[in-house]
Amino acid sequence: MAVGYSENKDQVRNKLRRIEGQIRGIGRMVDEDTYCVDILNQVSAATRALQGVAIQLLGDHLSHCVHEAMVAGGPEADEKIQEANRAIERLVRS
Amino acid sequence: MAVGYSENKDQVRNKLRRIEGQIRGIGRMVDEDTYCVDILNQVSAATRALQGVAIQLLGDHLSHCVHEAMVAGGPEADEKIQEANRAIERLVRS
Amino acid sequence: MAVGYSENKDQVRNKLRRIEGQIRGIGRMVDEDTYCVDILNQVSAATRALQGVAIQLLGDHLSHCVHEAMVAGGPEADEKIQEANRAIERLVRS
Amino acid sequence: MAVGYSENKDQVRNKLRRIEGQIRGIGRMVDEDTYCVDILNQVSAATRALQGVAIQLLGDHLSHCVHEAMVAGGPEADEKIQEANRAIERLVRS
Repeated sequence: MAVGYSENKDQVRNKLRRIEGQIRGIGRMVDEDTYCVDILNQVSAATRALQGVAIQLLGDHLSHCVHEAMVAGGPEADEKIQEANRAIERLVRS
Repeated sequence: MAVGYSENKDQVRNKLRRIEGQIRGIGRMVDEDTYCVDILNQVSAATRALQGVAIQLLGDHLSHCVHEAMVAGGPEADEKIQEANRAIERLVRS
Repeated sequence: MAVGYSENKDQVRNKLRRIEGQIRGIGRMVDEDTYCVDILNQVSAATRALQGVAIQLLGDHLSHCVHEAMVAGGPEADEKIQEANRAIERLVRS
Repeated sequence: MAVGYSENKDQVRNKLRRIEGQIRGIGRMVDEDTYCVDILNQVSAATRALQGVAIQLLGDHLSHCVHEAMVAGGPEADEKIQEANRAIERLVRS
């Protein structure tokens, strides 16, 4: 099945792998009793990286899945927009 | 060295391990061409979990590191506050 | 000119008027030396209300402006998506 | 009564007045059917300005109210920390 991020799959995958490594690194910092503020800064960095993935996935979703539904028309176009809006709301509010 | 999160170290560690698992799971979802919006929702959930870790670390930092510096007094107390403020700003803005 | 929020103009207008009143109220709280945390909670509430306006405007923008550009096709469709993505990024990152 | 932001009261007041003007300006943009994305960018700017006020108020609160409670000691010190943490959580999550 085609998904919105098909063309950027490797890039998304690499970003996620990097974030997974960041989180694992933060865990090690905790193990080693690293100073709180240094850990907090890494948590902020990982949070921003995760938002970056979300922004990319959302952009790809609009460019492909939502785009196709709109061109096809019908009730599914509206549903796709509503669904995208709820996803955007969850991102903005988190 | 004592760090602010000493008493909650296991809890912080477990939360981070769970988030690492969430990120790995999101990577698998990408591998399996999972629908964009389902992935986005997992990214939002992981972002919120990461913010939860930050809020806990910050609370422990204020309760212990900043608290002790304030009771001890001197210029270090002010520095600790400035440093905490910058960490809070980074969190609020991310 | 038709804008995305045309049908919800009164609603958006009323929300903004209410937020303007919230900000004015926060100003009065400052004048009256209200306790910091009570003010902070009002600032959080106003921030959430403002995000609510953004989410509504964005939803209307996707449903109308972006939708029409996509149906019309051509390079403008892509430009509209890029532009919407940048607006979403600004919102998510603020 | 002394509040945390006493020394910066004029500055906080001015920032809030400016934000109130920003929100009023956004309302006028809606009246004049301004393009959605231009309005969204102003909403993002106002949101960031509001977060700036929150960060300042929180910093002043830690520097003064929480600081004094910590130096005084007793159960009130812990309560002030818990209260500050809840305010930080509300900000980070909004």
